[in-house]
This record gives sequence, structure tokens and C-alpha cells, in this order.
Amino acid sequence: MALIVQKYGGTSVGDVERIQNVARRVKATADEGNQVVVVVSAMSGETNRLIDLAHQISESPELREYDVLVSTGEQVTIALLSMALNKLGCPARSYTGAQVHILTDSSHTKARILDIDDQPVRTDLESGRVVVVAGFQGKDENGNITTLGRGGSDTTAVAMAAALKADECQIYTDVDGVYTTDPRVVSTAKRLERITFEEMLEMASLGSKVLQIRSVEFAGKYNVPLRVLSSFEDGPGTLITYEDDQMEQPVISGIAFNRDEAKLTILGVPDQPGVAYKILGPIGEANVEVDMIIQNVAADSTTDFTFTVHRNDFEKAKTILQNVANELGAREVTGDTSIVKISLVGVGMRSHAGVASNMFQALARESINIQMISTSEIKISVVVDEKYLELGVRALHTAFNLDQAPAA
Amino acid sequence: MALIVQKYGGTSVGDVERIQNVARRVKATADEGNQVVVVVSAMSGETNRLIDLAHQISESPELREYDVLVSTGEQVTIALLSMALNKLGCPARSYTGAQVHILTDSSHTKARILDIDDQPVRTDLESGRVVVVAGFQGKDENGNITTLGRGGSDTTAVAMAAALKADECQIYTDVDGVYTTDPRVVSTAKRLERITFEEMLEMASLGSKVLQIRSVEFAGKYNVPLRVLSSFEDGPGTLITYEDDQMEQPVISGIAFNRDEAKLTILGVPDQPGVAYKILGPIGEANVEVDMIIQNVAADSTTDFTFTVHRNDFEKAKTILQNVANELGAREVTGDTSIVKISLVGVGMRSHAGVASNMFQALARESINIQMISTSEIKISVVVDEKYLELGVRALHTAFNLDQAPAA
Repeated sequence: MALIVQKYGGTSVGDVERIQNVARRVKATADEGNQVVVVVSAMSGETNRLIDLAHQISESPELREYDVLVSTGEQVTIALLSMALNKLGCPARSYTGAQVHILTDSSHTKARILDIDDQPVRTDLESGRVVVVAGFQGKDENGNITTLGRGGSDTTAVAMAAALKADECQIYTDVDGVYTTDPRVVSTAKRLERITFEEMLEMASLGSKVLQIRSVEFAGKYNVPLRVLSSFEDGPGTLITYEDDQMEQPVISGIAFNRDEAKLTILGVPDQPGVAYKILGPIGEANVEVDMIIQNVAADSTTDFTFTVHRNDFEKAKTILQNVANELGAREVTGDTSIVKISLVGVGMRSHAGVASNMFQALARESINIQMISTSEIKISVVVDEKYLELGVRALHTAFNLDQAPAA
Repeated sequence: MALIVQKYGGTSVGDVERIQNVARRVKATADEGNQVVVVVSAMSGETNRLIDLAHQISESPELREYDVLVSTGEQVTIALLSMALNKLGCPARSYTGAQVHILTDSSHTKARILDIDDQPVRTDLESGRVVVVAGFQGKDENGNITTLGRGGSDTTAVAMAAALKADECQIYTDVDGVYTTDPRVVSTAKRLERITFEEMLEMASLGSKVLQIRSVEFAGKYNVPLRVLSSFEDGPGTLITYEDDQMEQPVISGIAFNRDEAKLTILGVPDQPGVAYKILGPIGEANVEVDMIIQNVAADSTTDFTFTVHRNDFEKAKTILQNVANELGAREVTGDTSIVKISLVGVGMRSHAGVASNMFQALARESINIQMISTSEIKISVVVDEKYLELGVRALHTAFNLDQAPAA
């Protein structure tokens, strides 16, 4: 017997029929002798409907009242799912975030979980009930209703799993797992049987939007085994855990890419201490987030400095950079919005030399020019012209044998 | 400065525009220097939408989960109204039934209020905030969400007013007060400036559906002055209080009627002790509610026994009565569904003789035959053929000078 936390998102509970489908999955898990806690989101569309009502009244509604309003979305789902479970002969009881004592700070609409009182849930589980918990919400120490922000139901599920020391936290989505890369780009992309938290964080932050980053961090911190599965078809999904020493790690687990970035370069900057701060300080103050930063050794008394930002911030960042260039006496500012970042991710590259050279060779074979390179412990990223996205990803997918089943 | 509790029903908060309209009324009351607590229902249609979702899942959903579901309706309204008030520059804060500590018993869908902790509300009021409370809901001692049943928002308002010792509890509806009789039947019907709790109870139970009976009983018990007003037009409405000795009471306050009843008579029943129980026992056991009961003195060794039931229960009651008649050796069972009950209500009739004879004379002048008569302390009811409803009510309205303004 295991204690399992399952989370179903808005699409999975989008209508009454889908809620009944979720009830069948939950019952099947309970019937196998497991204790089950289910965390659910609002039915898809419901949160937007509520937000629209609020915005008809005020363009900037009080955040406290906003939380009172949108938290009703999950409350509807927990009641309906509990009814559906009971209807199937599977005893169930619903809890709002406040009722299950999910204590958060008071940052309305983006609250953070401080504590969970697991005792009421344990009592229900021990008496043979399935416990259905409203995701995305909690209460602060004064009893005010809070919400964790969009996607926060994943975090609720992981937090419940951590508090209950659950054997597994299963996140049901509309995909059947984490893939070696986006199957829409590479038709031979393979579902991964497992992936480490670190790899998943790199994959997620690079644009593989299967899980909320915060919930993966949280799961890693409390060592909660996470599993991503489809709520529409059966299958083992992808397990996210810590690195398993007994298992031979593949060199590369997956290939992520991001087509939302633009690059900016300031050329001929005097090579002096503090110049990086003078360039990036004003960018940060303007709330522009910077991703890759590259500065090579100076060729003469000047250096070149390149970084990437979100495409939406490109014009804003370029204007700031022009001013900085004038102040510093730099030669020129250039920019390019038609770039893409492609990244190899894998804990195996820690112990395997030659990953980078294999990568560059594969790209060279397709005559893809590399504009920028950046590396971390378990990741190598390159920036190339966006027209090479599909070609580059497919070439790397083959070069690192990710087409071969079974991926693990 | 007064402490005022205002209650707005589902029609009054039926859409965003109406909620903004309510906010303006609440602000006007606060701007006059009053402390204001507002109790609101779910937006009209919302409760039915939620119930429909539940019934798609189960024809008999668990009552606990049903309460979790439908209580979201009022939660949406309190958030939106608080936003609208704040938007108007009127500081406001919302509370669910659970948050404002409306403690009820555990009878889901028809819970009764046991206690209210008025302290959190007082703190908000004293700091200059309007407090917006979800009607119709509370929590039991284990923290389970409960609802008071349909129309329960009136009860919430009266209970809040009683707990806070409010100066007045104002119930905003789609009519502008309590009338001497139904204005759709008598065009000269007048709005009453005031009416006693007892009269209101008699009027309400007889079919004038302005207020929920339970909330009137509650207001009378805790001596909370109730006022019925329109949420769509300005006006003083009707005040419901205890009898005021300093005021000359009118003999009759109003005329109520009920066209939902049917009468049943069992003729030639042996006139023996216990016969009334033998007749009504089986009726009660079948959950048929009986209104008027008439048994006249026996003419010989047998008696006739008549009572009225709701028309929907007529066939069921008649079948039962046939069986009883056979057992008792009664002569015959007759029934009639085309009847109507007309009642004069007024605390003044306690001290004024001749009300009954005036009533009978007025009906006789119109050749209306009286089938049954029943009286109580402050009420005289007659049953007549339903074709005489309008004629009879109009004749009585004139005979008792209710056409004359000002009614008081």
C-alpha cells in the first residue's frame, strides 16, 4: 500500500464527463489498495470567467477580494469530484485550501505555502476515504483566503505530498510524459521513463512547459518523487527523481529550445573593471530579464559584450543600451530578433567528455553557424539563426541517439 | 450614527451593473455616517447553474459536498461587491459564512444558526469598513461548510443584526414594501408603513412571499426591527416591529389569500373520541401537510370532518381518506380543488368586536357563499369558490377601508 497524491489540471476536469473520468482513475488507484489524495484545479475556462467579472468592476481589483473570487473555481471542482467518487462507491471528502489548513503568507495572488497541517487528511485516509483538495489556494494566519497564482495547483500537490511524506506525487496533464524534445519538431522524439529534478528544471526553464518550475524546485527540495502522466490515456508517464547511482545515466536526456529570445551586442566597449555592471545595471532596473550573457577575452583595449532578452523586451533594452554605449564611448550596438536557443540537457555530461565537440560537429555537418555558446554543469546551449531550429534539433536528436528506444 | 444590516437578494445582484448599483446604495448609507453590514445572495441563476452541475453527476449528491458547491455562489458575490465598493472609495471587506464564524448545526442544506462571533465584524466596522457577508451559509463545529437552505440569506441578515444588536435590518427585494393585499388583484392596494411581526407571519404564511417566514420569526424572537425595501427604487419601504402601544392600530392590516389549497371532507363519521386522530394520523404519516381543520358539533351520532391540503397532495390525501372512511364506516368522502382561502390579518381585531360580522356581511353583499371559516387571535380565514377570489378580496379591501391612504 502506498500513499499517492494525484493532481488534475483544468483541462482534465473541464466538464462533468471529464470529472467522471478522473473519478474512475482515482477509484482505480484506491482499489489497488493505495491511500489517495487528489488535488484539482478549476474547470478550464472558469478562472477566466471569474477574472472577467472582476475586471468589469475594476481594472485593478483588491487582491484580497480577487483571491476570494477566483478560489471559488477550485471549490466547485472539489465538490463535483467528491460527488462523482461517492457515486462510484468510492468514499471521498472535499477540502478547500483553508479547510485543509494550507497556511500561506499574505501575498495575495502569489502567496507561498508556509505550512500544512496533515492531521485532518491522515484521519480521513486512515478511515478509507479519498481526500479531494482544492489546488492553488490557502489561507493566511488571519484566515484570509489566498491563492498561489496561476499553475499553483502543481505546488499544492507537491506540498501535500511533502507534508504527508507521500510515496509519489502524480501530475496528470494533457501530455503523457516528458519527451527527449518537442515531438512537434522531431517526430521520433521519445518519452523519457525518468529524468532528474535538475534536468527537469533545465528543460522546464528552457520552454518545455509540462510542469511549473516552482513545483519541480519544491519537489526536489523535499525529495518528493514526481510523475507526469496523461489524464486521457493510460501509461507510466515520466518519473522525476534524484539521480540514481545504480543506473547507467544517458549522456543527454533531452533537447530543449526557446524561440522567444532576442540578442543584443555592444561592440568596442573599453575593457575596464566594472563595465559589465554599467551595461547590465540599467537593463535590470528597467525590469528586463536577461538570460544568456557572453563576454569574451579582450582582443585589444576594447571588448564585445552580448546578452539575450525576451523578444517582447527587445526594443526597450536596445534603447537603454544605446544610451549606455554613448556614455561608455562604445563603438556600436547591434541586435537580432531572429535567433533561437537550442540546449542539450543531461546529468550524464558531468562525467562524459566530448559532449560539446559532438554537438558542434553535428551542427557543422549541417552547416549551421553557431552565434553564441554557453554552458553549465548539465547543459550546453547554443544560439543559432532561427531558420535552423528544426534542422538543428533533429540533427542533435540523432547525433545523441535519442531516437533509439527505450529512452531511460 | 446607526448600525444597519442590509440584505440584497439574487435579483438585486443579478449582474455586474446591479452589483454596482447595490454598491452605490451601500455607500450612500455609509456616507450618512452609519456602520453598514451587507449580506448578499448568489447572483440570480448561479445557484441553479451549480445545482444543475451536481445533478449531472448524481441525482442525490452528498449533502456535505452539495453545500461546498452551492456556497461558492455567494462567495463570488461578496468578492465582486467588495471590489465595487472599494472602487467607489468606500472601504469594504468580504467574509464567507465560515470566515465570519456563523456557527450552525450539521444539517447540510437546511442548517440552523447556533451562534455568531461578532468580534471580527465589529473590529472592521470600527475601523470604518463596510463588511460584506455571504448569506445562506455557515460552518459546523468541525469546520464543514453548511447552507441554510433556499432563502436563507434573509436569516443570515437577521442573525447578523441580532448578534450585532443592529438598529435596523433592511431586506432589499424587488418590491417596495408589504402591501395591504396583492396589487395585481386589487389595484388600490396600499403599501403599509409598518406592520407587526405577528401580522407579517400571518401574511407570509398565507402566501405573501416578500420575506422568508423563518427570518421573520427570528427577527421577532430577537426583536430586530426589519424593513422591506426595493433595491431598484428609493422609498421608505415597510417597517416590521412589535406592536407600538402609542400608535392607534388599524383594525385590519392586510388581506392575504392562497389559491394552492384543496379541501377534503369525510361525511357521516361515527362521533367517537379519537376519531380526529384516526382520520389525520394516516395523512400526517404520508407527509401531507394539513392547513385548516374544521369539525362542527355532531348533528346526530355522526359528524362531518373537513380539512385543506396543498393541491399537489389532493389525490394522495383523497386515496388515504377513502381507506380511512371504509375502516371507520363513514358515509362518504368528498373533495374540491377549486377553492381559495381569503384571510383578514390585523392585531387590531383583538380589541375590536364585529370584524367577523363585517367580513361576512361584505361577502354576502356580493353573494359569495362561505364554505369554511377558521379564526385565530389576529386572523379570520374563509374558504370560498375560487371564482370569487378577486371579487371577494376587493370587496373586503373596500369594506375595511384599506383603499384609504395613508396605510400605517
